[in-house]
Amino acid sequence: MAPTIAIIGGSGPEGRGLALRFAIAGYPIIIGSRDAGRASEAAQGLLEIRAGLPITGAANEDAASQADWTLLSVPYDGLEATTLALAPVLAGKIVTSVVAPLAFEAGTAHGVVVPQGSAAELVAGLLPDSKISSAFHNLSARDLLKPDMELEGDVIVCGNDDVARGQTVELANSLKNLRGVDVGDLANSRYIEDLTALLLNVNKRYKAHSTIKLVGL
Amino acid sequence: MAPTIAIIGGSGPEGRGLALRFAIAGYPIIIGSRDAGRASEAAQGLLEIRAGLPITGAANEDAASQADWTLLSVPYDGLEATTLALAPVLAGKIVTSVVAPLAFEAGTAHGVVVPQGSAAELVAGLLPDSKISSAFHNLSARDLLKPDMELEGDVIVCGNDDVARGQTVELANSLKNLRGVDVGDLANSRYIEDLTALLLNVNKRYKAHSTIKLVGL
Repeated sequence: MAPTIAIIGGSGPEGRGLALRFAIAGYPIIIGSRDAGRASEAAQGLLEIRAGLPITGAANEDAASQADWTLLSVPYDGLEATTLALAPVLAGKIVTSVVAPLAFEAGTAHGVVVPQGSAAELVAGLLPDSKISSAFHNLSARDLLKPDMELEGDVIVCGNDDVARGQTVELANSLKNLRGVDVGDLANSRYIEDLTALLLNVNKRYKAHSTIKLVGL
Repeated sequence: MAPTIAIIGGSGPEGRGLALRFAIAGYPIIIGSRDAGRASEAAQGLLEIRAGLPITGAANEDAASQADWTLLSVPYDGLEATTLALAPVLAGKIVTSVVAPLAFEAGTAHGVVVPQGSAAELVAGLLPDSKISSAFHNLSARDLLKPDMELEGDVIVCGNDDVARGQTVELANSLKNLRGVDVGDLANSRYIEDLTALLLNVNKRYKAHSTIKLVGL
């Protein structure tokens, strides 16, 4: 049976988009939000896009407690506090960071320099008893939320734990037409997170929803 | 007539590979090296791969003086000194950085944090009278040096000067089967330079020569 996945910060567009697509792929999803009511509303909204999917909502801590696996999809600003508060219920479980630390200056996106190297490495430092992976930074929320739109590109996955990395690649491969690419060490997360800034700048320039693909693999 | 391009540090594998491909595309090339003899040897070596190409060699300063356009393809460690020494002969001209500042730790490539943001922004600070662009970081030197091997992927180009950026996109498009993608501000160079580390780690893991393509553009 597919593991149940909590998406913390799942009421934001990226979180809701991933929730919808993972649920379509057969993963039971619990959307987590600081406010349980907002989480349920977000779940309800997704069920209006496609009825009958295994999506519920709960307050962040309940969501993470009930799930086998947790995705962190919160703004970088709140990442440290949110992660620390959930540490006890995340021990022993897989935790996947989808956080891209970004700032905007005169309309241009910039990757924020994270002292630990990347948002995912910050998470890993705060959750020494969890199995950390990093992935799903570079998919367009708008495209994810259109369930009939065919996605394209590669989901680059990194992490220091083999199990977390392997399952995250499998989760990426469960999304139709996408390919999970395991690139190894969690230290690669910085490049993947920063790519989000590059892609936002490309998308703004070309009014596109681009993503990347590794060719020659 | 196509502008003459000097490739500083052009006796290294990346520089030689770009020299070969640009010459095939019709650009006259001067390979620059600290030692004029080594530059001529490198040019000679490329003519043995394909005879009759417009490739010569010269000491760095002579190469940059004689050329309309200069590519910097030197190791990051020597970039500042090399660039400063050439500043007078590069004034008013296009200068393209292909430098990716990398370090290796336990077999994993890391992007070196550059105080100016990126190698290209370091160059821009040192050459206020030149027109700076940044591109060609992510092509495999080994593939470039096999003239019959079809390249694939996108050459991401950035820069704050419209002319430099436009001509660099044109240069990228002159390489068969590649696409130059103009992403705007030179501040994007960090993401492109860092991608080199990610691609090296991917290539090591999969024994591949991968590069990237932007899909959805």
